[in-house]
Amino acid sequence: MSDIIYGKNTVIEMIKSGHQIEELWMIDNIVTKEHNIKEYILKNQIKYHLVHRKQLDQMVKGNHQGIVARIAPFHYYDIDDLLEEAKDKQEKALLMILDGLEDPHNLGAILRSADCCGVHGVIIPKNRSVSLNATVAKMSSGAIEYVKVAKVTNLTTTIKKLKKLGLWIIGCDANSNMDYRQMDACVPLAIVIGSEGKGISRLVKENCDVLVKLPMKGHVTSLNASVAASIMLYEVVNKRCPL
Amino acid sequence: MSDIIYGKNTVIEMIKSGHQIEELWMIDNIVTKEHNIKEYILKNQIKYHLVHRKQLDQMVKGNHQGIVARIAPFHYYDIDDLLEEAKDKQEKALLMILDGLEDPHNLGAILRSADCCGVHGVIIPKNRSVSLNATVAKMSSGAIEYVKVAKVTNLTTTIKKLKKLGLWIIGCDANSNMDYRQMDACVPLAIVIGSEGKGISRLVKENCDVLVKLPMKGHVTSLNASVAASIMLYEVVNKRCPL
Repeated sequence: MSDIIYGKNTVIEMIKSGHQIEELWMIDNIVTKEHNIKEYILKNQIKYHLVHRKQLDQMVKGNHQGIVARIAPFHYYDIDDLLEEAKDKQEKALLMILDGLEDPHNLGAILRSADCCGVHGVIIPKNRSVSLNATVAKMSSGAIEYVKVAKVTNLTTTIKKLKKLGLWIIGCDANSNMDYRQMDACVPLAIVIGSEGKGISRLVKENCDVLVKLPMKGHVTSLNASVAASIMLYEVVNKRCPL
Repeated sequence: MSDIIYGKNTVIEMIKSGHQIEELWMIDNIVTKEHNIKEYILKNQIKYHLVHRKQLDQMVKGNHQGIVARIAPFHYYDIDDLLEEAKDKQEKALLMILDGLEDPHNLGAILRSADCCGVHGVIIPKNRSVSLNATVAKMSSGAIEYVKVAKVTNLTTTIKKLKKLGLWIIGCDANSNMDYRQMDACVPLAIVIGSEGKGISRLVKENCDVLVKLPMKGHVTSLNASVAASIMLYEVVNKRCPL
């Protein structure tokens, strides 16, 4: 099934990323700071229609900024592709496991951070989880095209497989006694982030090698999931590439 | 001016957050997965009216799901209140300046991180910025009730005032040459985060004492604003309270 995306930056990022744009509708003369969009689209040989703003209003409910596109479906990878990515780069594996994330804003922001931190892949479960879609693409600022995402039937089985292959599984859990800064990040590893409401599920938690927490000084007992994921990732980067 | 909110989860979240509900209208027998809403409202001693769905349709345009509430206005503080908070806690000031953030999800997530990191206050500009509202409240997971927010007419004037009072102004800017881990966080400081699309505005940037960047390994050139803000905050916490 094709997906509809909109907004100047989202469309440009999607084109830049190389994701196939099947069809595109826009009003005339829209520009961004960096691009004359029509020229950019012509250069990239994308089929487009010049339309009235009203027609776009009818196509999407959000703020389309004068441009709407239909894109090809998103591709998922296998776990082996993710590990291959680490091998190809001759790096210690760094994967992210998202245990039942629901909010596409969070998945998008995590993909963005994953790209920034050189993560080799993100694993999500088939059921009870947000999947790759246009909102995720928009929030990811194009990272969705660069970060490999695998969708698995059973997270626990996947974690057991990763452990056999030598990965260390680190779960982020507010009830842990271990500060996240104490984690050993210089081994091949996968970081597990729980869902927005419920955190990491019981079975997955039991299969983590270690659970760490982010220090909390205030009244709120947890961070936004994409924030927690990103702080964990930057800690790994900082440990692997110290100043 | 009071704010009107609607939708089952939004209203429940607002009640949970402790924000005052001034009045509430709902149809009979609405439930969520977790709550019998009438029981929940009675338990929280909120004044409510049972009405017909049509009456709610007249009150709001969106999908109200049978429940509408008028909430107390969000309160803003003065810069002095924020600094007083640091003084009261006998801590070096830690403020956050958000230069034209547009997305309520980001403001909400930043308030949540600000609470978790013991930030003394968040400063936003009066114009061209998202303000405190029901979406921000929801995304903040209640932190909106704990973190003091000041709304100022002119960010540059405010920054100049803060500098006179001895605060160090650190801007987060992808074009800087300085790694964020090099910043001195053990002085009183305010961290500046730019808007989602454009980063920090020119005048504000010129008034920063120092600009730092977060290392980026991938294709995407910036992080989500709330992620960047939170990584900066955790770096300050880590420097001020090392392991």
